[in-house]
Order: sequence, then structure tokens, then C-alpha cells
Amino acid sequence: MSEEQQLTGGSVSNDTLSLLMKHASVRQFLDTPVSEEQLAAIIGAAQMASTSSNVQAYSVIAVTNPDLKAQLSGYSGNQAYIEQCPVFLVWCADLYRLHETAGPHLGDTPSYEDTTENLIVATVDVALAAQNAAIAAESLGLGIVYIGGIRNNSAAVSELLGLPELVYPVFGMCLGTPAGASGLRPRLPLAAVLHHNGYDKEQTKEQVKLYDKVSSQYMLERTGGQSDIPWSAMMAKRLAEPARLHMKEFLQDKGFMKR
Amino acid sequence: MSEEQQLTGGSVSNDTLSLLMKHASVRQFLDTPVSEEQLAAIIGAAQMASTSSNVQAYSVIAVTNPDLKAQLSGYSGNQAYIEQCPVFLVWCADLYRLHETAGPHLGDTPSYEDTTENLIVATVDVALAAQNAAIAAESLGLGIVYIGGIRNNSAAVSELLGLPELVYPVFGMCLGTPAGASGLRPRLPLAAVLHHNGYDKEQTKEQVKLYDKVSSQYMLERTGGQSDIPWSAMMAKRLAEPARLHMKEFLQDKGFMKR
Repeated sequence: MSEEQQLTGGSVSNDTLSLLMKHASVRQFLDTPVSEEQLAAIIGAAQMASTSSNVQAYSVIAVTNPDLKAQLSGYSGNQAYIEQCPVFLVWCADLYRLHETAGPHLGDTPSYEDTTENLIVATVDVALAAQNAAIAAESLGLGIVYIGGIRNNSAAVSELLGLPELVYPVFGMCLGTPAGASGLRPRLPLAAVLHHNGYDKEQTKEQVKLYDKVSSQYMLERTGGQSDIPWSAMMAKRLAEPARLHMKEFLQDKGFMKR
Repeated sequence: MSEEQQLTGGSVSNDTLSLLMKHASVRQFLDTPVSEEQLAAIIGAAQMASTSSNVQAYSVIAVTNPDLKAQLSGYSGNQAYIEQCPVFLVWCADLYRLHETAGPHLGDTPSYEDTTENLIVATVDVALAAQNAAIAAESLGLGIVYIGGIRNNSAAVSELLGLPELVYPVFGMCLGTPAGASGLRPRLPLAAVLHHNGYDKEQTKEQVKLYDKVSSQYMLERTGGQSDIPWSAMMAKRLAEPARLHMKEFLQDKGFMKR
């Protein structure tokens, strides 16, 4: 692309971009409640995200009951902020609503809600909606952190929240007023994730080498000199963990990806 | 929550919320190119989305080559806007980068990249990043449409773009300057997707009944009186389609969800 095209590309700076660029997960919250009006605005914004053929294959459970939050925290690795945040959102992929309401129209026609394709559709749908919610919340001065730990005990979480078949909890999200500022974590270089007209393996390798230096330096600062583990070594530790091996069977038990 | 708490909840209106609320997919684009500066800002914003334990398990291929776009359009159900848009982004779940760069640290230690859990992690990661990109693009006056059709021929798309093992194309995204305004599509009522402290099956049913009326009216207007099909009947048609049954085998061939 020519330099002229770049220069005529228009401004690439605005308030929304600034908001996106300063995202950091929040793990300490004030007592301040989230109002129903705020929650409605946040979930309303979530609903406007794109959805595959308008299936809207997700649901979100807003958990404010302290006992429930305590139990969910226990199921998710005892992360204190799950109990501390005023609202804990459990984002669920939901093909149940489709199946239940489409059922009467289907009669004896076979139904394909149990495919791997539809697991992907519902999982993407809920993630797009949740990310809109995250941005909406941050635009209102609230903070969030995604909780993948909700999958540590998928079946127990499902039972606690009464999730029917064809619904699974994909991740949680703490929502509330941040108790302080969170630091930005450096991401991979742009060239590590952005490829042009085809996947570039060599570029990936080189860029990760650069990132290993950056992430090692970041760890040194963050841990006060206790660790300088680079990203690739951190990822090795993660890949070596037999994490959440129940997911395949759990999803199939819930009616997902049977084929 | 009391009325007072609602009223003290602060303003729930700002430019970012307005932007989120007016999202509509764009299916007609002008010739105007997307500058490298714009693309970098958009993907840079994508990178700031939350990511599970910093795995950043996604890649995005920016396709600008006309021949490649034409082939991708052919593989995705011949949607004209894939050829028309100046940049077609192919968003991929990517565990290859992790596996390749963590490998040297692992030695003989077994690695768990092939679990269903990690398929979910990577699929969520790419969706969160892509939704940030969508919002960044819209904040710059550009428009987007997600293309699930990229999964119609997953293996052919993967080969065309040279996607290595442990990478799969989750969805495409047309990016460019909108040729005109797109209409908003009414979503499910808030109460159909938002539950409090537990999943409410009855509420779901009632809310879909209300939505069936709204969506039927919307179809009447959109089709100039040709169709008044309500949402639940539309969803029945969708569930009755044996769509993309290759996904399970394709994902396993690519090294995903082997357990």
C-alpha cells in the first residue's frame, strides 16, 4: 500500500480506540453496586454484537446472591474477586433456547443442534456478546476480569445455576468498580498475530523471540526481580498441565458435539 | 435493587455505548482501501482484548490479493462482499504458535494442546480479539460483517492460506468503507438472555413468544410483505440443516480436541 494511501487513511485515534487500548483486567473491586440500569445497558450492548444467522445462542446469568458467588468462587479456584465483585456474570453458550422454541416447528424432522459446528457457533456467539459487554462496562468506568476457572468444575456450576441441556458455562466475568488502577500487560508484537495473504511460520517464530525478551523484562518488573520467565517458557508450563480434561465428556453429556 | 441505587448508578450513555448500540453488519463496500495504519490500529485493538492466561491463541490473515479473495468467496458460499471488500480478515484459532515456541522448553514432557478445553480456549480468544477489531473498525467509520461461511470448506481454506496444524479458520470478516446505511435488526428481549442467580426456563419461553411477534413484523417490513416468518420458525429451519458436519473430523485432523 502506498504512503499516500496511508496518509489519506484518516485519523486512527478516537475515544473508543483509546478505551480499547487501555484494557486491563481488574481483580480488586469496591463495594459500590452495579445498578440495574448499568447492567441493562451492558447486556443490551452485548446483544448488539454480531451473531451467526441471528441465532443469539447464548445466555448470561447475573449472580448477585452472596452464597452463590461464594460457591462459584469455590468451584473456580477460590479467586477472591468472584466473591468481592458486586455482580458475577456467568456467560453460557445456549442452544437450549433454540431447541426448545424451534422444536414445535420441527415435528419429526431431524435436528442438528448436537454438531461440533453448532458448538463452535454458540461458543463464538457468547464470546462476541461478552466482549461487547466488557467494553460497555469499561466505557462506564467499571472494570471486568474473565474467569476461565468456571470450567474447573463445569458440571457443578451447571447444577448450581440450573443450566438445562444444551447450555454450558463458557467463562465467568467479574463486574464492578475497580479499587485501583491495573497495569497493562504487553501483548505479542503485531507481526506475530497478523499475517498477509497466508500464514507465515517463520515470522511467527522470529516475533516470539522478540516477545520473549519483552515478556521476560515485564515479569522481572512485575515480580520485583523474582522471575524473568519468558512467554514461551510460561506457555510450556501451561501446555504441560492436564487441565480440564473433563470438558469433552462434559460437553457431550450436555448434548453438544455428539457428531 | 432499590430505585435509589438505580438512580445513583451514574450516566449510562456515552459515545462508545452509542457505537455498540448501532452495530449493523455491512454487506456493500466502497472501493476505498483500508490503510496499513488503520489495519494496524484495528488489529492492535484486537490484541488488547482479554486472553486466557495470556495465551493469545489466535492469528488473523489479512487477505487483500484479489485472486485469493475470489477463491475464498467461492469456498464460502459465493458471497459477493468477500470479493468486494478491500480487506478480508480470516480469524484463526491458533495453538500452533504455542506448541512451536513452547516445544523446546518441554523436552519429553507430554503436552496437552489437543484437548477440547484448549479448543474452547483458542476459539474464545479469537472471538474476543475479533470483536474488539469490529468495534475499532466501526469507531473509525469502517464497517464489517462476520463470515461463518468460511467453515463451509474448512480444509480448502486452510490449504489456500497455508494454515499449519493446530490452526483453524473460525470465521472471516469483511472490512471496508460501507457503501450505505444498514438497518438494525431487533434482538431478543433482554429478559430472554439475562437471567438472575439461575437459569429461568419459563422466562425464556415467554420472551421468545414476544420476540416471535417482533421478528415476524420485522421480516414483513424487510421483505416487503413476502414473509412473516417468526424467529422460532427460522431457527427450526436452521436446526434442520445438516450444516458443516465435517467440522468434528476436520478439527481432529488439524490436531484439535483429540481428547
